[in-house]
Amino acid sequence: MTSMMKIFKTIMIAVALVMGTCLQCAALPGDAITMTSPNGNLVMTFALADGVPTYSLDYCGQAVILPSRLGFELKGRQQLTGGFVLVGQEKSTFDETWEPVWGEEASIRNHYNELLVKLQQPASRDGEKPAAMHVRFRVYDDGMGFRYEFPMENALTYFMIKEELTQFALTGDHIAWWIPGDYSTQEFRPTRSRLSQVRELTPKARTGCGWPNTAFSPTGVQTALQMKTDQGLYINIHEAAVLDYPTTNLDLDDKNFVLRTWLTPDAEGVKGRMQAPCKTPWRTVMVCRSATDVLASRLILNLNEPCAIKDVSWIHPTKYMGVWWEMISGKSQWSYTNDYPSVQLGKTDYARSTPHGKHGANNENVRRYIDFAAENGFDALLIEGWNEGWEDWYGKQKDFVFDFITPYPDFDLPALNAYAHQKGIRLIMHHESSSSTVNYERWMEKAYNLMNQYGYDAVKSGYVGKIIPYGEYHYSQPLINHYHYAITEAAKHHIMVNAHEAVRPTGLCRTWPNMIGNESAMGNEFRAGIDPGQTAVYPFTRLQGGPMDFTPGIFEMDLEKVSGWADKMRHTICNQLGLYVTFYSPLQMAADLPENYARFMDAFQFIKDVAVDWDKSIYLMAEPGEYMVTARHPKLSTVNKAAEGVAKLPDGKKDVVNSVTKFIYALPDNATAADLNGAKARDVWYVGGINDDHAREVSFKLDFLKPGVKYEAAIYADAKDADYETNPQAYTITRKKVTAKTVMKLRMARAGGFGITIREL
Amino acid sequence: MTSMMKIFKTIMIAVALVMGTCLQCAALPGDAITMTSPNGNLVMTFALADGVPTYSLDYCGQAVILPSRLGFELKGRQQLTGGFVLVGQEKSTFDETWEPVWGEEASIRNHYNELLVKLQQPASRDGEKPAAMHVRFRVYDDGMGFRYEFPMENALTYFMIKEELTQFALTGDHIAWWIPGDYSTQEFRPTRSRLSQVRELTPKARTGCGWPNTAFSPTGVQTALQMKTDQGLYINIHEAAVLDYPTTNLDLDDKNFVLRTWLTPDAEGVKGRMQAPCKTPWRTVMVCRSATDVLASRLILNLNEPCAIKDVSWIHPTKYMGVWWEMISGKSQWSYTNDYPSVQLGKTDYARSTPHGKHGANNENVRRYIDFAAENGFDALLIEGWNEGWEDWYGKQKDFVFDFITPYPDFDLPALNAYAHQKGIRLIMHHESSSSTVNYERWMEKAYNLMNQYGYDAVKSGYVGKIIPYGEYHYSQPLINHYHYAITEAAKHHIMVNAHEAVRPTGLCRTWPNMIGNESAMGNEFRAGIDPGQTAVYPFTRLQGGPMDFTPGIFEMDLEKVSGWADKMRHTICNQLGLYVTFYSPLQMAADLPENYARFMDAFQFIKDVAVDWDKSIYLMAEPGEYMVTARHPKLSTVNKAAEGVAKLPDGKKDVVNSVTKFIYALPDNATAADLNGAKARDVWYVGGINDDHAREVSFKLDFLKPGVKYEAAIYADAKDADYETNPQAYTITRKKVTAKTVMKLRMARAGGFGITIREL
Repeated sequence: MTSMMKIFKTIMIAVALVMGTCLQCAALPGDAITMTSPNGNLVMTFALADGVPTYSLDYCGQAVILPSRLGFELKGRQQLTGGFVLVGQEKSTFDETWEPVWGEEASIRNHYNELLVKLQQPASRDGEKPAAMHVRFRVYDDGMGFRYEFPMENALTYFMIKEELTQFALTGDHIAWWIPGDYSTQEFRPTRSRLSQVRELTPKARTGCGWPNTAFSPTGVQTALQMKTDQGLYINIHEAAVLDYPTTNLDLDDKNFVLRTWLTPDAEGVKGRMQAPCKTPWRTVMVCRSATDVLASRLILNLNEPCAIKDVSWIHPTKYMGVWWEMISGKSQWSYTNDYPSVQLGKTDYARSTPHGKHGANNENVRRYIDFAAENGFDALLIEGWNEGWEDWYGKQKDFVFDFITPYPDFDLPALNAYAHQKGIRLIMHHESSSSTVNYERWMEKAYNLMNQYGYDAVKSGYVGKIIPYGEYHYSQPLINHYHYAITEAAKHHIMVNAHEAVRPTGLCRTWPNMIGNESAMGNEFRAGIDPGQTAVYPFTRLQGGPMDFTPGIFEMDLEKVSGWADKMRHTICNQLGLYVTFYSPLQMAADLPENYARFMDAFQFIKDVAVDWDKSIYLMAEPGEYMVTARHPKLSTVNKAAEGVAKLPDGKKDVVNSVTKFIYALPDNATAADLNGAKARDVWYVGGINDDHAREVSFKLDFLKPGVKYEAAIYADAKDADYETNPQAYTITRKKVTAKTVMKLRMARAGGFGITIREL
Repeated sequence: MTSMMKIFKTIMIAVALVMGTCLQCAALPGDAITMTSPNGNLVMTFALADGVPTYSLDYCGQAVILPSRLGFELKGRQQLTGGFVLVGQEKSTFDETWEPVWGEEASIRNHYNELLVKLQQPASRDGEKPAAMHVRFRVYDDGMGFRYEFPMENALTYFMIKEELTQFALTGDHIAWWIPGDYSTQEFRPTRSRLSQVRELTPKARTGCGWPNTAFSPTGVQTALQMKTDQGLYINIHEAAVLDYPTTNLDLDDKNFVLRTWLTPDAEGVKGRMQAPCKTPWRTVMVCRSATDVLASRLILNLNEPCAIKDVSWIHPTKYMGVWWEMISGKSQWSYTNDYPSVQLGKTDYARSTPHGKHGANNENVRRYIDFAAENGFDALLIEGWNEGWEDWYGKQKDFVFDFITPYPDFDLPALNAYAHQKGIRLIMHHESSSSTVNYERWMEKAYNLMNQYGYDAVKSGYVGKIIPYGEYHYSQPLINHYHYAITEAAKHHIMVNAHEAVRPTGLCRTWPNMIGNESAMGNEFRAGIDPGQTAVYPFTRLQGGPMDFTPGIFEMDLEKVSGWADKMRHTICNQLGLYVTFYSPLQMAADLPENYARFMDAFQFIKDVAVDWDKSIYLMAEPGEYMVTARHPKLSTVNKAAEGVAKLPDGKKDVVNSVTKFIYALPDNATAADLNGAKARDVWYVGGINDDHAREVSFKLDFLKPGVKYEAAIYADAKDADYETNPQAYTITRKKVTAKTVMKLRMARAGGFGITIREL
């Protein structure tokens, strides 16, 4: 911050004080322009300081972002660092309510004041066009977003970004929940610290990451960055609608507490290849008085474009199981044979090779999972390791690693789909690209066609390892474009996509609701790597951009019992149940093995009963990294659609009702579709809680229930002696009558939690 | 060369002298192994010098390649530079005759002696596999090839090449015809000089290249490198069957005259990503007593794999015209509008934009070309600039530059195809990728499908500009794989491919005969940039790997008359005629505008009459860069297939006979398919000559004609006063009776030439 800017800021605050806090300011002398949020609490100011564009943000008279620089360093002569003049400004207000295809609530209000600032650098020669850069600000009650726009009439037509120079000048040494900056992975454990401690704690924070990581700075952190001021304000810096542009990290100046966008470069070091007219993603600053307000914010979704898919009837929230954890836990393997030092697709003759006998995706085992998933009313089953090539799929930077269409000899794809459909189960396809996106794109159309042919309507894709094209990173512009290509091509085939190891989402699921899941953080697959408390960070950071396929539901924490591996997972059974409510996802997995659920069928009932799509969500209690308690009300149209979906399954059994439908309609376990005729849906709520490694008591009112209506609650809670280290499988299940007046008091064990189903009597 | 190696070489020569020249040597003491060519003239020796593998080559007792190192520097610990022991050797002989789908002769003999040398580096630790590297040598009468092979049983499974260290230690400061080494373009004028002059002449040799070039060494040159020793031996160093491996340059040590392979790196600097079992391309050394023997060599084709396409009935040599030269010459444009500073596919509304009026690929103009091509018995018409996106197609590194399926508003693709087919003409598709291969691959299947839908069976593809994926080069392994992918995918669609700006071919057309053309050198499109004499280098270098779409036939050399541009091309009309015989290609263009041919219809008759596929070729006279005289005999089955092909054209006119068929069957201009019934093909020969910038007289016997048979020759020769600078359009056409005893005497003007048709009476 220049001293001139400091002086300017002082004047601004003085002016704001004179005019009273939270009042809308008219344009100030010079080039300063202010704009408030609809409720007046947030005030943003744009100003040109000696030709350098800056912005700042106040919350109720309290500075949140000090004057911060805007601009770019470009490749070549033209620089967008200063020398700007203001040539126009437009203010407007927007207020609409829109309905997501799926989500945490049935409708979302998108209400903001907008300011478009038009800047130009005067042309240096006669007859030349000036370089034009616009900045569009949107101020909401819970934060702001701004993006750069480059209009068509411009000295800049095609240009390359060397650095984006957007700053977020903070007001102090806030507490932050952060993961280290990186170009290729976000699979780090979140750290809670003061910003001033980031440098010191980064080496430790980088440990435990399974992939070759690409650090760029000793104080780099990733978006979304959740912070908390000493005044108790929750500030979250993120980005929205990242398309045709690299994902950013934030580089921290830990002396001045200024964050700067640090874009992911491409293989030639370019940080954005632009063609006017074009725009950048939104840079966002969320400002909330409480942690639960952060969870309730829809800022990121609102800054994305409306749904681009006309017919969304084929998109449906899904609860699934998978032939997956047995590979992750070491019990079985993705691969088929140990015969060869390496395999070559189309050349290696699997039919003539010796099976090593540990291949998980074999016909018999898959049928066993189909049977269990069907018996327990699930919608779908994921099977990994079904296709040729897993013998040396990772770490080789192998180009042609999979073809995505050729099953192993012991995986009878047509027969297994037919078997599943007869039982009302859809199989979920798996496409592990091994980050060879060149190869994945070559096969994508054939792979999607195969899915259409056999009735798969969802795919889990994966991006493990270093990227091919060589030299690219997971978060560089070409890869952002690849992920988007995979989504849009899938939409043409009516396929839902759940991409793992892809870039963290930035609200694009509003526009492309077939993007039903992402991993993009350390999920349960990291086994013992998930710290207690870690999951209570994600809803503030990772989940702000879209749902996470966290793969909860692991009931057997001691992997020695599963596979002989020494890993011990750090949670209780009830913690896992709580995740189904606290972590929103339209795609929820019951990740453990059928045999492990069979030992705890009463607790498993919660997973069967819990819905996956909501018309209302209430964030009862939360603190990042500590605990969360959330209540949700299911969206009945989705429940009904799921029942209908079964009937639409190709050659599928027509009398199947999934477990959520049974619960909501209070049907018996052996109910069939015929029983739905005339059945009445009950009013149902679910409450979930998760906890860090400090046992705690929580109490909350059920005042969200309908007044005067009687409900029955089934409370799945940690047993008194439950503890993630000493007794993780101890739980109690209590049924009791509740009303809107009930106050619920519960104890969460260390790394514990709870799940509650509440159904109208 | 180490002094030890020099001593070893001396011993070797001594041994050879003792045993007599050109005799097959048994294995020598130590690890030296020799092998001769079938006729005994060439002797190659393999030896391990202190664990370093070396080879050398003698021709009739005369050293051609002195002991030269073999091996690799790898990324990581394992190095393949020395420490080898010989663990096995296999010798064999091979002799077969194969028939190319198209080519310079109907059958080709593939006759060689083979030596497989099995080398190992002993395992450093107990239980480890040893690193295994095999070298396979094939010695022909006209040269040798060798490649590295890595068997499956190997300490090396996946490995990365840092440098290939293959040397070619020459015996002196030979004369060479070379172009500068480069990773991305071969569009340089060839230079003739001593090897010792390469360093001094390289800066000049690099001028005139239109693309951003990527030099790597002040003495780098490209394959094929044609040399001539002071003893008159012609030595050509090249490579064959470059697949899944980068193309090599040759780095010259100009003190010791040692060439070394210098592979093209990928975006991460890796020069080859290998998975055992695998093999490198062949490295070749051709050794001939005369320049015409170089032209007659089939070494490169023989070292490629047999045809991989089972049904080749859809592959047919083609003579074509194009809506092309008018854009190259500046008369019209590829683009459609000047309305926008830049365009965006799918967003720019061309239908509502203002045409700039110079768009060449408009319906009316294309119909005019179709009419002219049909009237003159051509097979096909290329149209460039037919599809949206040309307004800013080049130089922007724009990813989504074309979709390859959306025509401009004034190009009615279905109607123009229907019109062409009714006249017996096929349209040739054009796919300019602008080197965005990521984008091209995304659209390739749709683009090929569109071609199939409308009856296109050939595509000219282009790779102008810097490559996307970013950081890749035209000749790096990922791009080699892309070109191959484009060819093999095209084959599935029965599409022939003629790729421009792609890598120089290395004989792959034997395996994939739908690869009917490549540019990969400075073609006629460089207008005034083609030096007299330059074309007489290409058959020794560029054409060794496969045919070139040189686009000959420019009759109007003064472009001021065409477009107002000041360029003057440097050749006579008869020089252009000579190219149709001296430059073999199954795809021959008559590149000039219809209106220019209309002014010289008598000379144009030669282009109409000349065939494009041969059962016999005789190289009568040649010296690289100076002159060439070639006689060729057409393959009648191809001629008949062409006539048949017309009938197979979708919805095509059934009574069309192409001009070559008319000439060979001596049918009148207005002949129809019906006239072919009962018509007898005449014995026909064509002779062509091309010349550098020294006028010269040539004389040659027609002793290749059938003895005792009378023929009529039509001789298209430079007029007495013809000269490329002062009188380039002056020619004479003389008809006379000839027999096998005739001696032909002709004068070729400066940058002149001639064409002769000889038809049995």
